[in-house]
Amino acid sequence: MKNKGILFVVSGPSGAGKGTICKALIEKRKDLFLSISATTRKPRPGEVDGVNYYFLSEEEFLEKIKNNGFLEHAFFCGNYYGTPKDKVYEKLSQGIDVILEIEVQGAMKVRAEHPEAVFIFVLPPSMKELKERLINRNTEPIEIINQRLNTAAFEIGHVKKYNYIILNDEIEKAVERFEAIIEAEKCRIERNVEFINEVFMS
Amino acid sequence: MKNKGILFVVSGPSGAGKGTICKALIEKRKDLFLSISATTRKPRPGEVDGVNYYFLSEEEFLEKIKNNGFLEHAFFCGNYYGTPKDKVYEKLSQGIDVILEIEVQGAMKVRAEHPEAVFIFVLPPSMKELKERLINRNTEPIEIINQRLNTAAFEIGHVKKYNYIILNDEIEKAVERFEAIIEAEKCRIERNVEFINEVFMS
Repeated sequence: MKNKGILFVVSGPSGAGKGTICKALIEKRKDLFLSISATTRKPRPGEVDGVNYYFLSEEEFLEKIKNNGFLEHAFFCGNYYGTPKDKVYEKLSQGIDVILEIEVQGAMKVRAEHPEAVFIFVLPPSMKELKERLINRNTEPIEIINQRLNTAAFEIGHVKKYNYIILNDEIEKAVERFEAIIEAEKCRIERNVEFINEVFMS
Repeated sequence: MKNKGILFVVSGPSGAGKGTICKALIEKRKDLFLSISATTRKPRPGEVDGVNYYFLSEEEFLEKIKNNGFLEHAFFCGNYYGTPKDKVYEKLSQGIDVILEIEVQGAMKVRAEHPEAVFIFVLPPSMKELKERLINRNTEPIEIINQRLNTAAFEIGHVKKYNYIILNDEIEKAVERFEAIIEAEKCRIERNVEFINEVFMS
């Protein structure tokens, strides 16, 4: 039952908690690989280059685009974000499941090229809660927060292009839901065609 | 997030272990409802009417067909099998997930009427293992066993109409896979359209 790894793409409004969920999942499950995005945005306090993101200058980022080094890239809230291609494909070919935590624009680009990937949208319990989380994060001016809330409205229009929602009401439950989705996807018929033939020939 | 229950339909070759998996799951998860089928076949040693099956005479069964009392019914290996309709719909409308353990023929009839149901096919590790399990069960003559193995071949042609396979290599693992599928299905976008709207309106 040795298959190629599955590509899981996680999006959701800023403040919905997708980063926290992915981090908790990766700590729990050493068999998964969380892709690190590159960005031109400035690090938030505590963020480390090569851990949270690869922090690139705009010049470096544009050079990497030119060299076809991204699986997807997008311009979002004044900054570039992108998924370096090489590591993702390497892990998938080794049978390791890969998680991409990316914005909706980027996710839709990945979907065009990888319809077999699994698209997960992280939902906050309510928009009111989302706004409170963004304010309490206390790292951004109110204009940026309002910009992020407007972006959340844009994202509504795309949620139906995803396969799953994960409600982030409690972090442990959200991580369990993610794990269930991973396990269930491994059982899907279309990922097991060869294996089914093997069983019936044996 | 109070939805209608989800209908899970479980099939697989006789001897693959679908009965054992469903029984173990139901004992573990009191929130699920396992539908009891009706049949005209004779009880095997230890089987109890109203627990394993509703054992009906052919006359009683045909009467129930006439009264449109079955969700599906099929003639299989010389006997009628059917799923009484009333309990299934009652539980689903109460938001309770329902499991049907039925043959491929019956499953395909349910699929025509309930495309939103989830179709799961239980696979043995190999056909060799399947034959051994049927022989070790020691309740049926060799002709019936051979008939069942031929039926397994027929079922191959239909496995791709299912959504998931559950490999029954170890019963505990198989039950965990089933639970993951249940949890993941609750997260699927198409089952959460109303809920998503509620979140974004709140």
